[in-house]
Amino acid sequence: MTYTGKQLTTQLDADGTLTVQLNEHSWDAPSGTQLLVKIEATPINPSDLGLLFASADADNAVYTPGKVVARMPDGATRAFAARHGMAMPAGNEAAGIVVAAGEAPAAQALLGKRVACVPGTAYATYATCDASMAFAVDDNVSAEQAASSFVNPMTALGFTETMKLEGYTGLVHAAAASNLGQMLVKICQEDGIPLVNIVRSADQVKLLKDLGATHVLNSTDADFMAQLTDAIHETGAMLGFDPIGGGTMASQILSAMEASASRGAAFSRYGSSTPKKVYIYGALDIGPTILNRAFGLTWDLGGWLLTPFMMKAGMEVVGRMRARVMKDLTTTFASHYARRGSLEDMLTKDAVAMYNARRTGEKYLVVPN
Amino acid sequence: MTYTGKQLTTQLDADGTLTVQLNEHSWDAPSGTQLLVKIEATPINPSDLGLLFASADADNAVYTPGKVVARMPDGATRAFAARHGMAMPAGNEAAGIVVAAGEAPAAQALLGKRVACVPGTAYATYATCDASMAFAVDDNVSAEQAASSFVNPMTALGFTETMKLEGYTGLVHAAAASNLGQMLVKICQEDGIPLVNIVRSADQVKLLKDLGATHVLNSTDADFMAQLTDAIHETGAMLGFDPIGGGTMASQILSAMEASASRGAAFSRYGSSTPKKVYIYGALDIGPTILNRAFGLTWDLGGWLLTPFMMKAGMEVVGRMRARVMKDLTTTFASHYARRGSLEDMLTKDAVAMYNARRTGEKYLVVPN
Repeated sequence: MTYTGKQLTTQLDADGTLTVQLNEHSWDAPSGTQLLVKIEATPINPSDLGLLFASADADNAVYTPGKVVARMPDGATRAFAARHGMAMPAGNEAAGIVVAAGEAPAAQALLGKRVACVPGTAYATYATCDASMAFAVDDNVSAEQAASSFVNPMTALGFTETMKLEGYTGLVHAAAASNLGQMLVKICQEDGIPLVNIVRSADQVKLLKDLGATHVLNSTDADFMAQLTDAIHETGAMLGFDPIGGGTMASQILSAMEASASRGAAFSRYGSSTPKKVYIYGALDIGPTILNRAFGLTWDLGGWLLTPFMMKAGMEVVGRMRARVMKDLTTTFASHYARRGSLEDMLTKDAVAMYNARRTGEKYLVVPN
Repeated sequence: MTYTGKQLTTQLDADGTLTVQLNEHSWDAPSGTQLLVKIEATPINPSDLGLLFASADADNAVYTPGKVVARMPDGATRAFAARHGMAMPAGNEAAGIVVAAGEAPAAQALLGKRVACVPGTAYATYATCDASMAFAVDDNVSAEQAASSFVNPMTALGFTETMKLEGYTGLVHAAAASNLGQMLVKICQEDGIPLVNIVRSADQVKLLKDLGATHVLNSTDADFMAQLTDAIHETGAMLGFDPIGGGTMASQILSAMEASASRGAAFSRYGSSTPKKVYIYGALDIGPTILNRAFGLTWDLGGWLLTPFMMKAGMEVVGRMRARVMKDLTTTFASHYARRGSLEDMLTKDAVAMYNARRTGEKYLVVPN
């Protein structure tokens, strides 16, 4: 049996034209450990936008029903040469109903069930997904509740697990008012992990304080660096996670860690010997990262990505993380959406303008069927 | 018994005045495991200059015999608040004769011997040093040959040991024509380690090629990035060491590693999964580090410093490194000096202008006695 429906693809051509459109698509019956999932709900995460629109000029794109044609900057077009001419599906995660399953027992066990899954092709009527990347949800969990149960929850838990693996005892989080940041506030409360939250407005300070966060700093305050140094000194948080990437945030965090570590210590020309590290895990600002290196020579900056982290952490840790997400899906790991729409609505100008702005609290949920 | 002589100190005051001067100084007789070393020769390394003159304006300083008074920029003055008002001795390493020793057997064993040592206070007539940081040299080794037997040799060996510890199989080295870079070329030849050298002139290319280096790239070539990508692809060198610090060198190395790792691979929005890392181990350029992040999310950038590395590597590795340096002190680990002078000469305008420029091949050796 063949299933037919629509699937979104994004294609960048060598001339800098980016085309995001809906296509008629057919799915073969799944085999082996494969599932065919009828997609009920799938979020648009920042990590999806990097593929969907990348740095294309969505404001001046041409919008027709089910199709957006935009221009990519020349530099980005060259940087993404490996995807030129390829019509790529998108959509990391979703919730849906397993309408067909391969003959393998792991697949058959999920037939007819509602699952949270990570097909990578979720902006579509259906998606094929390996059973190992799908998890049945409890009967009382809605598709909307289950749709965002992978990327943000596992990333937030990944931060605390990374902290433990690398021997740190507290965290600094930038752009901390995001859905993910709110989850991290709750996780750290539950686990007694000191967390320094950095946000960029008084409203966001209130949002996280209302969740019970202890340290919430506004990066637009004139004395932000002094506040950050104090908070790091109080918490001993020497591991930071930064989804902004561009600009000076990582450098500021490392500088405040160094200032805290050097407090009361004798002068050393090489800086403190306290390990301090920041991971960049996103690119809310795609501009260059600027490091002033006013933090000695004992520091690390790296990229952080969920999949390699899970491979490094191993099955047992990942299984424990996954179980915790499923248990607390409607509390700690609940996501919030500002707008819901069909695949067609997702490609309208005002929808793109809304979710491509990546504003805190303005998340879009696609409801394909 | 008390020994008297001269000792250099560098002092930064809160008003931005940096004073480097010679002072009369007396040394007490050593006790325990301490040695008193009469300094014969001590080099000025880039790592010494960070303390000596930091970013002070040496060109417009006031020079009087045995004294230099310079202005530090306001930002640097604030950044170094921890050293305000302190007259700090300097000079990491030296060769000299042990003229007095504490009662401990380890100290007594070195009495009367010529040692290579790491007192941290070597710009002086004498220096006190723990016996654990001093090593007797063979009778046929001159003071000049032994003077630079610690910082550069151990750092160069530290790079290859770091490579092995972290599971990498080849190295990229920036500013590779330095004394240290030349040592690294020889070490990598001896050990069969693939090495990509980056220099900034045709003369420097010739210098390293004449030493037998295989990959020597000139960063001023128009197609430097293509050459670097090819060389990394050929060698699999995914660990870089950069003493420049400021500017785009680290970013360029990571970008070339990523381009090499992605060659022929399917497009991934997150970049390649190949680990790639650059260590910044100096600050030839004290300006900000600029990262364009065109290298996915699997990367690391960190500071590298010899002392923490040795603590991490452990006694056995460090002992092996040390023995190798002593064995090959006049060949692989030989240093070259462009000028030699007394403590007084070291503080003249033309001497400071020469060594503070940190030009390749223009190293200064202080001969205090």
